[in-house]
Amino acid sequence: MLPPEAFLPTQRRPARPPIPSTMTATLDPRLEAKIRTAYAAQGPARLLGLNIVSLAPGRCSMELPFSEAVSQHHGYYHGGIISTLGDSVGGAAGCTRAGIDDGIVAVEFKINFLAPAVGEKLVGHAEVVRAGRQLVITTIDIVSVKDGVEKQVALMQQTLAVLAGMEPAAQWGV
Amino acid sequence: MLPPEAFLPTQRRPARPPIPSTMTATLDPRLEAKIRTAYAAQGPARLLGLNIVSLAPGRCSMELPFSEAVSQHHGYYHGGIISTLGDSVGGAAGCTRAGIDDGIVAVEFKINFLAPAVGEKLVGHAEVVRAGRQLVITTIDIVSVKDGVEKQVALMQQTLAVLAGMEPAAQWGV
Amino acid sequence: MLPPEAFLPTQRRPARPPIPSTMTATLDPRLEAKIRTAYAAQGPARLLGLNIVSLAPGRCSMELPFSEAVSQHHGYYHGGIISTLGDSVGGAAGCTRAGIDDGIVAVEFKINFLAPAVGEKLVGHAEVVRAGRQLVITTIDIVSVKDGVEKQVALMQQTLAVLAGMEPAAQWGV
Amino acid sequence: MLPPEAFLPTQRRPARPPIPSTMTATLDPRLEAKIRTAYAAQGPARLLGLNIVSLAPGRCSMELPFSEAVSQHHGYYHGGIISTLGDSVGGAAGCTRAGIDDGIVAVEFKINFLAPAVGEKLVGHAEVVRAGRQLVITTIDIVSVKDGVEKQVALMQQTLAVLAGMEPAAQWGV
Repeated sequence: MLPPEAFLPTQRRPARPPIPSTMTATLDPRLEAKIRTAYAAQGPARLLGLNIVSLAPGRCSMELPFSEAVSQHHGYYHGGIISTLGDSVGGAAGCTRAGIDDGIVAVEFKINFLAPAVGEKLVGHAEVVRAGRQLVITTIDIVSVKDGVEKQVALMQQTLAVLAGMEPAAQWGV
Repeated sequence: MLPPEAFLPTQRRPARPPIPSTMTATLDPRLEAKIRTAYAAQGPARLLGLNIVSLAPGRCSMELPFSEAVSQHHGYYHGGIISTLGDSVGGAAGCTRAGIDDGIVAVEFKINFLAPAVGEKLVGHAEVVRAGRQLVITTIDIVSVKDGVEKQVALMQQTLAVLAGMEPAAQWGV
Repeated sequence: MLPPEAFLPTQRRPARPPIPSTMTATLDPRLEAKIRTAYAAQGPARLLGLNIVSLAPGRCSMELPFSEAVSQHHGYYHGGIISTLGDSVGGAAGCTRAGIDDGIVAVEFKINFLAPAVGEKLVGHAEVVRAGRQLVITTIDIVSVKDGVEKQVALMQQTLAVLAGMEPAAQWGV
Repeated sequence: MLPPEAFLPTQRRPARPPIPSTMTATLDPRLEAKIRTAYAAQGPARLLGLNIVSLAPGRCSMELPFSEAVSQHHGYYHGGIISTLGDSVGGAAGCTRAGIDDGIVAVEFKINFLAPAVGEKLVGHAEVVRAGRQLVITTIDIVSVKDGVEKQVALMQQTLAVLAGMEPAAQWGV
């Protein structure tokens, strides 16, 4: 196990303010139902316990509880698992800006690990910074929660492609 | 020239709030003098007119005025030049968290272009999100200013390495 | 399920030639034993079946068999899981260039998804492109294997930090 | 000036083999003329002396001669300028896979700096790793040439978007 001194203190910065209400008009309930159903059907969600905490236009938060399955050999959350959370929450935020029958796929992402991640859960907060017809760009903050205290552990930028009309809501029973 | 319709509207989001005053205690004047002198000595600064607008602990803003030298064949700011601004302003923000005799070099960065950049100037705002003994991570927003109106045109994450004691302030006459 | 036409053909390019034998002198057996033991102890390895196929100085290959746990809602390998494979195989390649008692942690990575990943397994090939005292840079190709036919599905660049003396081989019984 | 010992030796790896002739059928002369004309018209090309060395389907090489304009305060090539070369050569390689009347814009890129760049010129080699109708992915190696000796100084991954029919060859007199 690496001693805590192996890592350096992380500079905390204030969170972004909430999106103005003009941007956060309630999400279309059918779109919300489609996104929740689709994400619940994914292997990692079922297997790792990844779940959607909140969903609004251009935003999504997801949680991942700690388990042996998500830790690496030092007892920290595994970097690939942190990325899985980030990739998922960014994709779901992107879906809120796509059409009800559109699909979304990740084109690429980049993640910086800021501090070792320990604690009872990880929370990812994703925000759409640009929504186009073909491409959606998101930014994602990932925080760990240990004994109720939050610490930012990773920062991500992600590019998504919109597959227009390629994933009909009907296939999810919506 | 590409028509404006080639590009999609950019979703604007609120800026991050200012860093609390506990984090923005005035920058050591010697460190500030060293950073300003070193950046003014760079080729791109002199050639392109890149200059530091503000400098505070963990933060820097720089401006780049429009000129033919920074535009590509459609009349927009060239992507590589936008990156040059971003890489520079991130490096300067990182220097504010290093020691007076340390050097800073960029290890890597990633940039997403959000919208075509036009207008009288580009402004880059960099913020340190993690400052360690060996590595400093920054995030950078780049906005264009056209007829006084701001628009975010790029988003960047950058990793810097601290070269402890490798760039004495004395060499810059500080 | 998205139809195959949703995705575009991938341009194949020839693989890099093997590293010259002067670079691939046999790996120190103790270092190899340490790396294999440490990676086998990780949650994702045990849970997902991720395993080391080959290990040489500056290089590693790992395999991940298909299972429901690694697929997303379209039946493809989940992007986060592809990243987990990439992050792991890059880290292991990096370990071959570190000292026997050093630790390795990922600082950041960037991944491009090139094509949807289907088939009986994923294979990741990592290569060290720069090995320094403090930082190691790797590049990773990820291919899917379907009915024995390989297709490149992702491309990654990764930065690792060396934690000198922070993970003694003895703790892994080596 | 930082002493050379500040930097660590770079591990060299063999270059990728040439693309098979089936992939490198001669480039359409009109497309080649359009790309060469468009790039020669860019500010950085004219100002910095950036020029196309070779162009083939899916590939491009460009050179940038040393000058004060491209160096930073230690006398090395400036990181932003290295990125400008990389972004340009990747974009030109991408153009070879687009239609004669299509435009290409960079969506994002990521660059790792491997070693300080010094010498009489920089050369960038770009290769398309995936060419789709909407997105083109490239990888770029950047080498410095000092006294005729090559050293890899940066590695890049880039995502380009195809703007179908948005940049008619006729506007370049082709």
